[in-house]
Amino acid sequence: MKLLFVIEILGTVAFTFSGVVAATRKKLDVFGILIIAFVTAVGGGTLRDILIGVFPVSWLNNTPLLITIAVTYMGSLFYHQKFSQYKKIFFWMDTLGLALFSIAAINKGVDASLNIPVCIALGTITGCFGGVIRDVLLNEVPYVFREDIYASACIVGGIVYFLVLHFSNNEIYASSIAAAVVVFVRFLAEFKNIRLPDLYK
Amino acid sequence: MKLLFVIEILGTVAFTFSGVVAATRKKLDVFGILIIAFVTAVGGGTLRDILIGVFPVSWLNNTPLLITIAVTYMGSLFYHQKFSQYKKIFFWMDTLGLALFSIAAINKGVDASLNIPVCIALGTITGCFGGVIRDVLLNEVPYVFREDIYASACIVGGIVYFLVLHFSNNEIYASSIAAAVVVFVRFLAEFKNIRLPDLYK
Amino acid sequence: MKLLFVIEILGTVAFTFSGVVAATRKKLDVFGILIIAFVTAVGGGTLRDILIGVFPVSWLNNTPLLITIAVTYMGSLFYHQKFSQYKKIFFWMDTLGLALFSIAAINKGVDASLNIPVCIALGTITGCFGGVIRDVLLNEVPYVFREDIYASACIVGGIVYFLVLHFSNNEIYASSIAAAVVVFVRFLAEFKNIRLPDLYK
Repeated sequence: MKLLFVIEILGTVAFTFSGVVAATRKKLDVFGILIIAFVTAVGGGTLRDILIGVFPVSWLNNTPLLITIAVTYMGSLFYHQKFSQYKKIFFWMDTLGLALFSIAAINKGVDASLNIPVCIALGTITGCFGGVIRDVLLNEVPYVFREDIYASACIVGGIVYFLVLHFSNNEIYASSIAAAVVVFVRFLAEFKNIRLPDLYK
Repeated sequence: MKLLFVIEILGTVAFTFSGVVAATRKKLDVFGILIIAFVTAVGGGTLRDILIGVFPVSWLNNTPLLITIAVTYMGSLFYHQKFSQYKKIFFWMDTLGLALFSIAAINKGVDASLNIPVCIALGTITGCFGGVIRDVLLNEVPYVFREDIYASACIVGGIVYFLVLHFSNNEIYASSIAAAVVVFVRFLAEFKNIRLPDLYK
Repeated sequence: MKLLFVIEILGTVAFTFSGVVAATRKKLDVFGILIIAFVTAVGGGTLRDILIGVFPVSWLNNTPLLITIAVTYMGSLFYHQKFSQYKKIFFWMDTLGLALFSIAAINKGVDASLNIPVCIALGTITGCFGGVIRDVLLNEVPYVFREDIYASACIVGGIVYFLVLHFSNNEIYASSIAAAVVVFVRFLAEFKNIRLPDLYK
């Protein structure tokens, strides 16, 4: 439970930040940025709670989470002029949010005793959804479809999670290693330029 | 409870109308207009019910609401040729829907004993969401991001709601004054051309 | 219950297929196609479950459904080069998905003892939603607004459903005939070029 809490806070920071960066690039005013940041941060967890059936949706009673969003928002606004390398910061924050939210959702899926493929699907959707809603609201084709290795990183991470859990029986190990794998796979894809096959060669 | 019902009916009329106007401008046929109007009208309340955990979602069993949508839809179709000043009508109806749905959501949040900042966030999201889904479906950048003072009007209204409630302990006073404040703030912003700071001066 | 299961599996095949075709036309990579296909297939049922209040949302525990999606996805990828007549295949699959999901939702609405107009509204929204989310994610104006007779086919089908149910008291008859009516109405509209009135003559 404590592990899940830490993961969610870190993922929230990352996605709030990615929301601020994306909205800033679109030149929204400070309130528009706040809404995008908020929706990006809570979107994934909200979808997860709805799909599993946790009501009221968890952020409604999660004051630390709301404070985290508010502080991250204000901090990132304050330092926005240093975002000269938007693209890189955005990449890392989005990747981190993706990793943390997908692993958090897998944990919750395990707690709800869903079976393994469903947990992985839930993790992938949850991880992607915050960013998807951010991009849909900003009227862009969601990042997940422009980046080859994105959802696939979550799926690989999910498989690793259950492998490690199987052998170690330790959720903290499984979560940490799986999150690292998600980040690593996206890193590899980005900087080694690995791509999925498409159908138009 | 009765107050909430009246607020919802009025907000539904306003949002149905704004949906008809927005869809008419995009030259959809009569059924496309109906769907947009319907989704705009029930979108905010649906999201609110889902987030709090009210199932079946309230419009499924709310016959008066469905009749309200049908009558408003038919009435506004009938008079559509008088919508020569689309933009103004759209502005007022959208503003009214925003005010009424955000206040209705705050009332429901209070009934569900959520804390104050969460109630205000819930009200703001609920108020904005009908319009957001309308604009996303019509493939436009949501109005909420094009208008500087929109979500912020809800937040100001929410704060006023709790101030009035604190001093008067009367939900009807609080709701009426808060809704008026939301409308007034948007009016001021529109006609006095007040804008939020952005980060690119 | 068994009937509903068969309808859902068939609708899932149709919508998965329509998702693959739509995503292939946009030249997404194989994982992007998978996500679009998945969301198109489960989107309608997910919305239906959420609105009625069935949690966890049914696909989370529906292994046959997930296998159906996986097999359809792989099969349609394998034969993708024969999709030379994309538009026609897409039309038929989308129509079939629309018919089956709207009727499935009406059945579930009846089981939840919702009243008739609400069941028809639920069926229409559920039938359309998988395609709507597919199109929104692909950044297109949803098909439902570009095709005159789309949602209206669901509504006609829904009315027929309750007429047949009233006279035969047999859900299988009602479902089969209503689904056929939805397909037939769309077929007529497409090939006889029947259109709804718009307001700009």
